[in-house]
Amino acid sequence: MRPDFSKGLVPVVVQAVDTGKVLMVAYVDEEAWVKTRETGRAWFHSRERGLWEKGATSGNFLEVVEVRLDCDLDAVLLTVRAAGPACHTGAESCFFNEVTQ
Amino acid sequence: MRPDFSKGLVPVVVQAVDTGKVLMVAYVDEEAWVKTRETGRAWFHSRERGLWEKGATSGNFLEVVEVRLDCDLDAVLLTVRAAGPACHTGAESCFFNEVTQ
Repeated sequence: MRPDFSKGLVPVVVQAVDTGKVLMVAYVDEEAWVKTRETGRAWFHSRERGLWEKGATSGNFLEVVEVRLDCDLDAVLLTVRAAGPACHTGAESCFFNEVTQ
Repeated sequence: MRPDFSKGLVPVVVQAVDTGKVLMVAYVDEEAWVKTRETGRAWFHSRERGLWEKGATSGNFLEVVEVRLDCDLDAVLLTVRAAGPACHTGAESCFFNEVTQ
């Protein structure tokens, strides 16, 4: 089973296996999907950077524990073991901005 | 604080407050974001349907408990209390497709 890439990049939700926290959202194209499946680590595609491996610069790789696709195959959920902070800011999760009323 | 809509639709990760499960991914434009903030329920925008409220047809509304934005403001994390299955298939979560090697 694989994502449907016919509409372009597919969003990937990254969730920590130990805490259940949502760490980040990024995107895969077919190439990044294949790399993720082959290596067991999270690879993404961005319009600016092209193919990139999470952690290649920081060392904070994301080890893939489980891969799920949604009902219409246009979103991916990666359950991961994170080697360090997922966010480039150094935060554990990219979702550190709480919106209040 | 609000998402950056300058690059188009913004993905929304919906997570259940009680179980921590990721239920679905959908998108907001500015209109859907404002409706979500005003009503305390999840509204989305899809290219096919335009503005829609989750649960308007099924009754399975998503009551918003917490709203977070990621580091670069181009993804939303909604923590919700779900009135019923989040998936249109009747599944609790849209991510019911487990990908195996």
